Amino acid sequence: MILCDIGNTSVDLFEGGKSIKYRLDEFDPIGYSETVYYISVNQAFTERLKILPQWINIESWIDRSGYYPTMGIDRIIVCEAVEEGTVVDAGSAVTVDIMKKGVYQGGYIALGIRSAQEAYARLSSVLGISFNFEVDLTIMAKNTPDAITLGYFSPLIHSIRALNTPLYLTGGDARVFAHWLDEAIVDEQLIFKGMKKIIEKGNGC
Amino acid sequence: MILCDIGNTSVDLFEGGKSIKYRLDEFDPIGYSETVYYISVNQAFTERLKILPQWINIESWIDRSGYYPTMGIDRIIVCEAVEEGTVVDAGSAVTVDIMKKGVYQGGYIALGIRSAQEAYARLSSVLGISFNFEVDLTIMAKNTPDAITLGYFSPLIHSIRALNTPLYLTGGDARVFAHWLDEAIVDEQLIFKGMKKIIEKGNGC
Repeated sequence: MILCDIGNTSVDLFEGGKSIKYRLDEFDPIGYSETVYYISVNQAFTERLKILPQWINIESWIDRSGYYPTMGIDRIIVCEAVEEGTVVDAGSAVTVDIMKKGVYQGGYIALGIRSAQEAYARLSSVLGISFNFEVDLTIMAKNTPDAITLGYFSPLIHSIRALNTPLYLTGGDARVFAHWLDEAIVDEQLIFKGMKKIIEKGNGC
Repeated sequence: MILCDIGNTSVDLFEGGKSIKYRLDEFDPIGYSETVYYISVNQAFTERLKILPQWINIESWIDRSGYYPTMGIDRIIVCEAVEEGTVVDAGSAVTVDIMKKGVYQGGYIALGIRSAQEAYARLSSVLGISFNFEVDLTIMAKNTPDAITLGYFSPLIHSIRALNTPLYLTGGDARVFAHWLDEAIVDEQLIFKGMKKIIEKGNGC
């Protein structure tokens, strides 16, 4: 079984226990003879895939009733992978979602690392500097790089930890957050686990 | 005594217990015969004021030794106004600084409300919506406006409250933060209190 997560700029393909990231503009979906189960947030690319019979969009297989209508499909699927706990998907945005006995409890959307850094840079050239990923979040800052790093990470890490649930970290920046959330399980393939679960349910119907 | 805080786009003038905000491009400093004590983050405007004898820049009167070199002058002055507690200055950035027995303990810089909203809008048109300032921060969100409002405010409010010190709110968005920090003292004139303290110390020397 091949699984595929199609974004706006990249494609993540999961096959034989491993995932590979492709640039969307360099990815050719025609060469696949085996069935590829996919989700996509990219309307234009989804249109192209509709005429390829081996590409199967599983979006309609998902029971969205526990979620809210405008919630992103990728966000729903990482939640579906978890029965109990908080899912932090740290990508361009950082979504924080709580699952309880397989039921969605709600969540929130914080800015992603890059997005926050860009916003600091727009505020002032003094703040347009790199985060210090080695900073100690328990000590208040006395220099600018530490002050913006704390300003972004400290409230977020603090509030995630305060949820006091099992913690799953996924997304491109999962390992950065893991640095300050060492109790968390880092699982970069959570989206594929969620997809598998949905496919298995779908096939069982 | 007239006090004046000069920013990059506006001027706050404090006279007779009241402060008035002017647009910088509409503000004429020449018409003042009384002494005006000022601070400025605007280099070009500071140059213009140098030739006006009634305008006195108090920046050099401040003992910066307890602070860090790149720390903004306005941020230092609101700290100087407070002996004990946390100062949250909610403007284009949100600075959170701790004072203990009049000594600076460090702080952090979060993004301001507008800056965060603009960053959400840049991430996706779905997120380019207004915050819901009435949201209950104790309940996880199940719609997009609440999810971004929580994503911005909840970690920040949570971490400010966790500092567990007396709390002073100032800056243009002080009242928005006060909505969720009802134990805080809102003081929009904290910068002028800090300036007064520095002027009194300076005159005493």
